[in-house]
Amino acid sequence: MAPRKLQIAVAGLGRMGARHALNFLNSVPRAELVAAFSPEPKEIEWAKVHLEPFGVTLYTNYKRMLEHPGLEAVCIGTATSVHAEESIEAMDKNLHVLCEKPLSTSVQVCQDVVDHAAKKPHLKIMCGFSRRFDASYRDVAEKIESGKIGRPTILRSQTCDKHDPSGFFVAYAAWSGGVFVDMSVHDIDLTLWYFGSSVVPKSISAYGVVAAQPGLKKYNDYDNAVGIVEFHDGRIAYYYASRMMPHGQEDVTEIIGTEGKLTVNLNPQKNLVNYYHNGGITREVPHDYWGRFEQGFVGEANEFTKACLDNTPVPLEFNNAVKAVQIGAWLQEALVSGKTIKFDEDGKRIEKSNL
Amino acid sequence: MAPRKLQIAVAGLGRMGARHALNFLNSVPRAELVAAFSPEPKEIEWAKVHLEPFGVTLYTNYKRMLEHPGLEAVCIGTATSVHAEESIEAMDKNLHVLCEKPLSTSVQVCQDVVDHAAKKPHLKIMCGFSRRFDASYRDVAEKIESGKIGRPTILRSQTCDKHDPSGFFVAYAAWSGGVFVDMSVHDIDLTLWYFGSSVVPKSISAYGVVAAQPGLKKYNDYDNAVGIVEFHDGRIAYYYASRMMPHGQEDVTEIIGTEGKLTVNLNPQKNLVNYYHNGGITREVPHDYWGRFEQGFVGEANEFTKACLDNTPVPLEFNNAVKAVQIGAWLQEALVSGKTIKFDEDGKRIEKSNL
Amino acid sequence: MAPRKLQIAVAGLGRMGARHALNFLNSVPRAELVAAFSPEPKEIEWAKVHLEPFGVTLYTNYKRMLEHPGLEAVCIGTATSVHAEESIEAMDKNLHVLCEKPLSTSVQVCQDVVDHAAKKPHLKIMCGFSRRFDASYRDVAEKIESGKIGRPTILRSQTCDKHDPSGFFVAYAAWSGGVFVDMSVHDIDLTLWYFGSSVVPKSISAYGVVAAQPGLKKYNDYDNAVGIVEFHDGRIAYYYASRMMPHGQEDVTEIIGTEGKLTVNLNPQKNLVNYYHNGGITREVPHDYWGRFEQGFVGEANEFTKACLDNTPVPLEFNNAVKAVQIGAWLQEALVSGKTIKFDEDGKRIEKSNL
Amino acid sequence: MAPRKLQIAVAGLGRMGARHALNFLNSVPRAELVAAFSPEPKEIEWAKVHLEPFGVTLYTNYKRMLEHPGLEAVCIGTATSVHAEESIEAMDKNLHVLCEKPLSTSVQVCQDVVDHAAKKPHLKIMCGFSRRFDASYRDVAEKIESGKIGRPTILRSQTCDKHDPSGFFVAYAAWSGGVFVDMSVHDIDLTLWYFGSSVVPKSISAYGVVAAQPGLKKYNDYDNAVGIVEFHDGRIAYYYASRMMPHGQEDVTEIIGTEGKLTVNLNPQKNLVNYYHNGGITREVPHDYWGRFEQGFVGEANEFTKACLDNTPVPLEFNNAVKAVQIGAWLQEALVSGKTIKFDEDGKRIEKSNL
Repeated sequence: MAPRKLQIAVAGLGRMGARHALNFLNSVPRAELVAAFSPEPKEIEWAKVHLEPFGVTLYTNYKRMLEHPGLEAVCIGTATSVHAEESIEAMDKNLHVLCEKPLSTSVQVCQDVVDHAAKKPHLKIMCGFSRRFDASYRDVAEKIESGKIGRPTILRSQTCDKHDPSGFFVAYAAWSGGVFVDMSVHDIDLTLWYFGSSVVPKSISAYGVVAAQPGLKKYNDYDNAVGIVEFHDGRIAYYYASRMMPHGQEDVTEIIGTEGKLTVNLNPQKNLVNYYHNGGITREVPHDYWGRFEQGFVGEANEFTKACLDNTPVPLEFNNAVKAVQIGAWLQEALVSGKTIKFDEDGKRIEKSNL
Repeated sequence: MAPRKLQIAVAGLGRMGARHALNFLNSVPRAELVAAFSPEPKEIEWAKVHLEPFGVTLYTNYKRMLEHPGLEAVCIGTATSVHAEESIEAMDKNLHVLCEKPLSTSVQVCQDVVDHAAKKPHLKIMCGFSRRFDASYRDVAEKIESGKIGRPTILRSQTCDKHDPSGFFVAYAAWSGGVFVDMSVHDIDLTLWYFGSSVVPKSISAYGVVAAQPGLKKYNDYDNAVGIVEFHDGRIAYYYASRMMPHGQEDVTEIIGTEGKLTVNLNPQKNLVNYYHNGGITREVPHDYWGRFEQGFVGEANEFTKACLDNTPVPLEFNNAVKAVQIGAWLQEALVSGKTIKFDEDGKRIEKSNL
Repeated sequence: MAPRKLQIAVAGLGRMGARHALNFLNSVPRAELVAAFSPEPKEIEWAKVHLEPFGVTLYTNYKRMLEHPGLEAVCIGTATSVHAEESIEAMDKNLHVLCEKPLSTSVQVCQDVVDHAAKKPHLKIMCGFSRRFDASYRDVAEKIESGKIGRPTILRSQTCDKHDPSGFFVAYAAWSGGVFVDMSVHDIDLTLWYFGSSVVPKSISAYGVVAAQPGLKKYNDYDNAVGIVEFHDGRIAYYYASRMMPHGQEDVTEIIGTEGKLTVNLNPQKNLVNYYHNGGITREVPHDYWGRFEQGFVGEANEFTKACLDNTPVPLEFNNAVKAVQIGAWLQEALVSGKTIKFDEDGKRIEKSNL
Repeated sequence: MAPRKLQIAVAGLGRMGARHALNFLNSVPRAELVAAFSPEPKEIEWAKVHLEPFGVTLYTNYKRMLEHPGLEAVCIGTATSVHAEESIEAMDKNLHVLCEKPLSTSVQVCQDVVDHAAKKPHLKIMCGFSRRFDASYRDVAEKIESGKIGRPTILRSQTCDKHDPSGFFVAYAAWSGGVFVDMSVHDIDLTLWYFGSSVVPKSISAYGVVAAQPGLKKYNDYDNAVGIVEFHDGRIAYYYASRMMPHGQEDVTEIIGTEGKLTVNLNPQKNLVNYYHNGGITREVPHDYWGRFEQGFVGEANEFTKACLDNTPVPLEFNNAVKAVQIGAWLQEALVSGKTIKFDEDGKRIEKSNL
């Protein structure tokens, strides 16, 4: 008898949702993609070609999809604004949930989802941070764990997108939560991973410019921003987020310990080719995060599936999803207000006299 | 109705065969692995755990497996010595064949298989050269095609394995055909790809040493060898094969054209991590070809499947498989004899007075 | 008749002064080192072997040296605390001055020297920032000038020393002015170079930790510090200074423009050798700034000499030396106080309600 | 009293000679350039500006220069065709000699010079191989010496020039001795350094093409050539020489030992800058050997001077200069004839039945 496969559905078939759907369809041997939902006619058209022929039932109503016979889990890749609500609805149907990051751009809403999940301990609830499943970032975690760099003390991490003159970033800024919530949340999550999730911020400050996308100003957002988070246990993380890279995606992380240092992707590359020409030697760079993290998303889907089927813990604490968004939101607040935010040793924000 | 999936079987469940089986089981959405064969009890034990539960019927008799109901294609990953015979048997059952390289260490036998295939033009017959499916090598092919380096003139390519003190290489030398047939055949295949498959050798010479594995001598094999193939149209390819790398797998190729140069994997790396310590900065290297070419094998399986289902040409001329082995065998002969082999402009070997 | 050579003396024969003396003795064809001064008997001993035999007169009294017959210029490489006084004394003797950075750790004192120099326009007065003479940093300046990256917008720069367990850094902290004045002053100078020396800070903030050298605390200094300078014209520079590198000197700069990006020394290396071993591939890194910038110091000495002899402008505005130290001092203040410093559009510090 | 300086003259003021002259004038503290010779009016014009004002006496007659009062040594940088004769004349005047490589393109003539030198053991006679003075190549020698790679077994080395469409290479081929004598002689010298100068060739073969400079054919030369030298003690060196590089100078060496591997300049670079643009990431490459080896030439001049003054051995066995040219000439013969040359264990050429 063939082993049981996780009966899973995907919600949202846009850029990210479609990739999740194809991953569960083609690259997760222990899962069976049985249903998919989108409210967008264009996405349903796509799904009729790429999913329906393979036995995937299509829905234009999320709640109806949740009632698909035998459904066990949902992967949520819709717009951020509905992540939280859809996650809670799925939990209420006793379905496991893999939700794209962030749960919400509102910290309170994130917390609500986490609180809700706490009442359903039999369910596997995970917020996807693809870098947690990337071979290089995992290698770093192992090397830190084995003591190779002493105590991790300084973390520098950047998420940098290729410049896109199409206006996409401006439109997206309307609801993205801002660069720190949308982009740096990955770098913050890495910080919680490598410094430990119990770190308590002492101060948060951030500065930004609008250099290439003037339209961002109306949304109080920036195309280049630098932020620093100082922690109470004598560690510092600093972040750079940019949507102005000329060459492609450049997500770089370095972790400096008391006895060693580790870097990830300091020299971004699309593949292993170098081209030698009369101007020098050139290598290409991935155009976007998918070119860098495709295998990470595949790993995420497989590991979530395994946790559901084998009833093992998900590889990533759900609480982190709130904490990362919380720090991102504070960075964004510091960025927009120009004011440093300070915290006491219990992590309580010091409202007055904070300078 | 779900699209038809290619009903495929895998022959041989050793190191390579098992990987093919798992690929077809898990990473080829349009294929269904329905059967697997091995004469080895140990391999069958493995398959009972990793294949049978997923609906794969196991066979200890190859011919019986070929009669598996509905079977359409076979992937042959057994020992090289039976590749040819099994390929021909599969063709005789009108099955498509994806055979691991080489078809045989005997050029004559390779030719027999190719001749046999020519009589079955309705079948898809492919000899697997994984580098043909690697993203970097394909990028090189596109860049050459688009004229970026002018006329490709010099090709340097090496296949270098990590030193293995276990004695494996010595045992393997008994039937591998020698370093040029076993290892450099990949580099030769790249030559046929980038220079064109119609190139005609003018001379072939090769030299080698036994430096780390004295046991190789009894099989007339070498652990380090360099060979040069001069072609009649004013091009040269030179190869290095080694089984003595301290650090891991290092397969490097460079192609020098009249107006540019391309390199692949000049700086081998296991992942994107660098470790900084008091001795400097270190990166790790893949231990074996699987660490370098895993995605290439997945691509190969998918593209073969697509060719079978859609009745499109296989992405790799079957004749090349003979030509590459032929050149490898001549290099091996030159290596062992210490004599240069020369050819006329029609590619006919000049037997006498060849110096 | 042989061209006239600049008659120069070097003050201070410690680590840095000795190097300057040897440079002027051996690597500056248009200069003649005629005198050298040190108050330290040990340094005079050294000079008796390495300088005196080559015609260099040794002095243990700085003022006496200034009266050396025919002297035209002085290179000051003594302790920072006497840089200013010695510079002024030399100017008062109408001698050209090349002074090691910084002029002083006190901004006021720096300004005094600059003011003094303004009264002696016939003299060549230069404060040495060795990176200004480094081939790579110059290449960056040319590429920016030629418009290759559009408008330089974000600058990241770090000065990172190899961890030194000897206690040297702690002793040095007593009078170094702190990490931002001592180390990051180079990165700040690069900022003035690439962004233009007229940039006006808008805010300055900084955070640090003591992770490896607890003794630094008593001097209010840190072994790792991150600082951000926001400028009024929509640019940001951020700096990292560390004395905790495991592997060697790692001074890295990247400049992100609206249309391109440039990096310097992202992959530090001692030479062009890579060592492949069973742990991977390793390259070594220079142990200190001399290993990275030796040729820069030679260039500095030659260009200063040329300016003196040919009466051409020195290649580096003297005012910058104040401005760089000023920004460094503000960063240091922000670091120690934990408070952001803000400035109005004229660069005037906003003392109250600055958050 | 100032230490004595070596009184040296430079013969030849063309591309290479002028560089030697400037080095001895400006960068060799222990030498004094007292005289220079050139038969070329244009070079003498140059010297009147760049040498004469600094006390260098100019000669248009080589023999007259040798009689310059107090002269102790000569650096010969004239055309290769007169290297030998001028070296012998200088020795006959009891002058130390630093001669540019090669002594001659004729092995016999090289040997004559070496034999002549043997009769003058009080003189320092050195044939300049600049890589012997390069920091990276020296680091490799030290690492080999210290056993880091076990027994050096395979050496791959290439000397590759940037494509020059001016016709210079064709004109130069008339008297250069051919690519292996002119270019690969450096790689051969490295082989003698790293394998030991007592290695005995077993076979030598080579192949080449004319791809970019058709004019070379009339001089029996090639713009791309590959050669293999097999040694009797179980080692192999293989070389690539090209004058067709699109990007600049690319001299690469790798040495594979039984327990490790070392590479030099695998990733050529002009400086430490990387430029990120919408086509990827680009670094520039030195245009010629001077951009790569300038510091090596300075070191060579200083070390030769030291040997003369201190009467210590020159850092480079003079015999090697014959041996390197001899192997180069055999490679060139094999290249032109298309025939492998074989040797017995005493290094004696096997004339007949050599295949």
